[in-house]
Amino acid sequence: MAFMSDSRTNSGVDNVSTFRKMFHWEVPGERFITLLTAGNLATTQAVVAQLEERSKAPADRNPAMFQAPTMFEVASHVGKLLRNTISARAMTGATAASPSFNASMILGGQIKGMEPRLYMIYPEGNFIEASADTPFFQIGETKYGRPILVRGFEADMEFADIVKLLMVSFDSTLKANLSVGLPLDLMLYKTGEFTPFHERRITSEDPYFESISESWSDALRAAFHSLPDYELSE
Amino acid sequence: MAFMSDSRTNSGVDNVSTFRKMFHWEVPGERFITLLTAGNLATTQAVVAQLEERSKAPADRNPAMFQAPTMFEVASHVGKLLRNTISARAMTGATAASPSFNASMILGGQIKGMEPRLYMIYPEGNFIEASADTPFFQIGETKYGRPILVRGFEADMEFADIVKLLMVSFDSTLKANLSVGLPLDLMLYKTGEFTPFHERRITSEDPYFESISESWSDALRAAFHSLPDYELSE
Repeated sequence: MAFMSDSRTNSGVDNVSTFRKMFHWEVPGERFITLLTAGNLATTQAVVAQLEERSKAPADRNPAMFQAPTMFEVASHVGKLLRNTISARAMTGATAASPSFNASMILGGQIKGMEPRLYMIYPEGNFIEASADTPFFQIGETKYGRPILVRGFEADMEFADIVKLLMVSFDSTLKANLSVGLPLDLMLYKTGEFTPFHERRITSEDPYFESISESWSDALRAAFHSLPDYELSE
Repeated sequence: MAFMSDSRTNSGVDNVSTFRKMFHWEVPGERFITLLTAGNLATTQAVVAQLEERSKAPADRNPAMFQAPTMFEVASHVGKLLRNTISARAMTGATAASPSFNASMILGGQIKGMEPRLYMIYPEGNFIEASADTPFFQIGETKYGRPILVRGFEADMEFADIVKLLMVSFDSTLKANLSVGLPLDLMLYKTGEFTPFHERRITSEDPYFESISESWSDALRAAFHSLPDYELSE
């Protein structure tokens, strides 16, 4: 499994900050859980805090996500926390002018003895699971980066190519939309390892990302010019 | 100037139809006006009908768009019609569950003795004009097709290349979103001609569009594989 997230949050274009949107938890040799978030930051931070049971003293914490017998149960738990968090905010007297408290999440992980699982969780708390037909999910500002994922993704890609594809997709979005910004967080997970196989924060000085971003412009232009010409006289 | 529009309208995924979204009017040798529409179909049709003064008997019609001294005045007129149409609908008791009556438009054209002008008109009736810095506008489902426009557009492109770029951009959107569909309408306008230089409806059987769509997938994949590889050991 491969995960990538940006780190820009904004409340209007004049209030932009950087927050990590990718989280993971491990029980060595037993389970590995990753959560990616999009949407209202207060909502997603509240969900993560509840997942970690931060309201309790450290010694009293016994997070449900570490007890759930299956990833399906973990997804149900996250979905319930997300839904409850959003509806608690909405009930405090939100008006049409209020910001949306919505958020959505991608949950991936593996519990020992079972296959890795990948879910997309909606603000309503329900969720869908990835399958061979739909092997990837996007949340947040998904549209700009989608065409290259749709065209470029192949089921038998190696990790190095997947990273390349994720970077190209994010680069298209970064170039088009101010609400998505560097740094990016990257994490790769290999089945059965219960710990990230590869982790990296990609900043604006990252030489590989820079080279991808530049060569993609050239490669796209070359690809474009390689297409058959339109005959105006037709 | 080059214009392209799709022709899909939908009211939910189970009520999909085909309507032209590109209109143009000519006063031979004197003025040429093009309008592209996005958004609520009843709204955009009402605006076009009012522009043509269809409520009057044909002999009594004397459309303001043919009298306006400048394209700026034409844009103001279209903007006013659009705003009034939307607010008239909204006042009839729309609820949160009501559909949005919003629409936006692209207006292009030329009046003899003046430069060609290109405007984007918002639902509020205000508008912006294209410039050397922002030489193109998109309305409707703009995001999927935007990255290739941003990267591929060059100010000195010839018409044949512009058509190619428009087709690639629309193809990315068609592949990603059901609310955009063939046929596409294409129109090219040369300064001073006051009539379209080239017009075409691109259907699903169009051999050029088919070849673009197919070779773009291959060209994109080749472009992708030409990028430097990611080193997992870094």
